[in-house]
Amino acid sequence: MFTITLITVGKLKEKFYISAAEEYEKRLKGLCQFNHITIQESRLPDNPSPAEISAGLDKEGEQILLKIPKGAWFCVLTPEGKQLSSEALAEKIAEIKISGKSNACFLIGSSFGISQQIKNKADFKLSMSPMTFPHHLARIMVLEQLYRAESIQAGSKYHK
Amino acid sequence: MFTITLITVGKLKEKFYISAAEEYEKRLKGLCQFNHITIQESRLPDNPSPAEISAGLDKEGEQILLKIPKGAWFCVLTPEGKQLSSEALAEKIAEIKISGKSNACFLIGSSFGISQQIKNKADFKLSMSPMTFPHHLARIMVLEQLYRAESIQAGSKYHK
Repeated sequence: MFTITLITVGKLKEKFYISAAEEYEKRLKGLCQFNHITIQESRLPDNPSPAEISAGLDKEGEQILLKIPKGAWFCVLTPEGKQLSSEALAEKIAEIKISGKSNACFLIGSSFGISQQIKNKADFKLSMSPMTFPHHLARIMVLEQLYRAESIQAGSKYHK
Repeated sequence: MFTITLITVGKLKEKFYISAAEEYEKRLKGLCQFNHITIQESRLPDNPSPAEISAGLDKEGEQILLKIPKGAWFCVLTPEGKQLSSEALAEKIAEIKISGKSNACFLIGSSFGISQQIKNKADFKLSMSPMTFPHHLARIMVLEQLYRAESIQAGSKYHK
């Protein structure tokens, strides 16, 4: 069975986001093997300097590197990424499956983003919107899109 | 005080979406006058024909027309709309305020969209993403963006 891994940084705090994430993860698990990995968010001072932010992202990056499954197709969510429709994302995942890869890994960074080193490792950079969403809400959006992508591939009616 | 009205079609069912919407509405009310109006969703058969969908959207459209505040700047959320960054949306709302309008009205349609007649009435067509999101999740995304837009204008730290 194809495995999708979602790596996120920092714990969800709002109860409604925790419940929404649980719901979409449950649905997703009906269509593929799904793993969610949480990386600890670096603690930064209130008004961090660029150097402090960069050091924080590098520290998160070290943890992330250890968690990307071996041989996985690796996709980072980042504002400078390419936009795809839901159908195009489903097609992309279908292509990865056809190429023989057995897993795909998606990464949502912390509120300060993702280190350049990690971005350089990505097979694909994906942007959901030119708008800035809090990374907690972005997690729900990604989970919904992954569920939608798997539904499209399974030919279910959900996505219509 | 500037008034923002959000018109949506159909009630939220999932508890986590209800809680998330309440939270962002509460925050938004700290920065502007905010009204939320719910229009009844047309009941359609399981596999509706294009004519049935069109009739349903027209019926919703009649209710929507009665609810758009007089003189409001009217914006519909639709996939063929223009994409804006959060900063550009904040700027757009700031411009509306400067132009002397005292209210803006945003519309999220039902799962089948928005009738052409209503789209033609819009001052602006906005797209958040080329991806398809369920309209319930889109409501949370719009509320968050409206809160973010007001925060940017208020110079608060939220949006960073």
